[in-house]
Amino acid sequence: MAALRLWGQESSGNCYKVKLLAAHLGLALEWVRVDVTQGDSRTPAFLAMSPAGQVPLLRCADGSFLPESGAILWYLGGSSAFVPADPLARARVLQWMFFEQYRVEPNIATSRYWIHLLNEADRFAAQIAAKRAPGLAALAVMEAHLAREAFFPGGTPSLGDIAWAGRIAALPDHIGMHEPLRSPSAYVEEVGR
Amino acid sequence: MAALRLWGQESSGNCYKVKLLAAHLGLALEWVRVDVTQGDSRTPAFLAMSPAGQVPLLRCADGSFLPESGAILWYLGGSSAFVPADPLARARVLQWMFFEQYRVEPNIATSRYWIHLLNEADRFAAQIAAKRAPGLAALAVMEAHLAREAFFPGGTPSLGDIAWAGRIAALPDHIGMHEPLRSPSAYVEEVGR
Repeated sequence: MAALRLWGQESSGNCYKVKLLAAHLGLALEWVRVDVTQGDSRTPAFLAMSPAGQVPLLRCADGSFLPESGAILWYLGGSSAFVPADPLARARVLQWMFFEQYRVEPNIATSRYWIHLLNEADRFAAQIAAKRAPGLAALAVMEAHLAREAFFPGGTPSLGDIAWAGRIAALPDHIGMHEPLRSPSAYVEEVGR
Repeated sequence: MAALRLWGQESSGNCYKVKLLAAHLGLALEWVRVDVTQGDSRTPAFLAMSPAGQVPLLRCADGSFLPESGAILWYLGGSSAFVPADPLARARVLQWMFFEQYRVEPNIATSRYWIHLLNEADRFAAQIAAKRAPGLAALAVMEAHLAREAFFPGGTPSLGDIAWAGRIAALPDHIGMHEPLRSPSAYVEEVGR
């Protein structure tokens, strides 16, 4: 059985969530640093493992490779306390994982990448501006949920929280993007550190 | 137990995949038409059921509401033959479902919406052009996979295929977008009709 190995970048929210889950579950992950800004994820060797050049990338226990942070979370945590047993409750965990990937990540993490990792806020000003409204709308949906429930989807922390905590932890990086979240700090303290 | 009811739009790939799975599983779904282009998904009544205004939206057997096509597929099909039992195999189904939502849908379905549903290709020309390269790159990854495997992730049809077949079925709508798929028709015939 191969040791679990994770290729990723420290600053990536999608990578952070895998490290966060592993820490919660006490799983040892070998960390291989990939610098996306330097083209490390576009080399032939990396593309042979991750066809779309995606990080995080996990080498699983059987030696095969698994990309997509959501799939990695489910592989590592699908039978843990972070996923409930009831079919509808399981689906609701996925509901928030898909929401995070579809509505939150593309509208928030992309801007953060341009602003804070590439340091090219001016060059990408138009795209950043276009993502601001949908980004704030997605955060407002998350905020409204947190007004009713302590976690995503609710009850106890789930993979939905693991998927989302990385974004919250990085929210101060998103200029103005944290406004709709009135009190994320306690939530992050419980879930995301 | 409430009857399963689906709010959706005929032309939506995300809605199509739920209808497709229901047809495969022999599940009866009450269909409620939502016209996104006419604002039907932004009314207070609809937002009370689907906080982000998303279709498809399912009313589950317990009467609660579930958005996010991927979550709906997992709720309806998570214990069917479309999801394998092995944890890694299950994660690989999710790998392709997340890939479809993150890389394929935003770069392909959005352009299709602007071109074919809104009939505003000129107005959105810049955005359509920007999405073309990542859209083709995502299709190339799918095509490369289909050169090695019959299905997503492989073996027998899974929810990964259900999630993706709707896009393929609609590919002729995407100007030039079908080029990288050399022979999707047999695949669609087996999975997507």
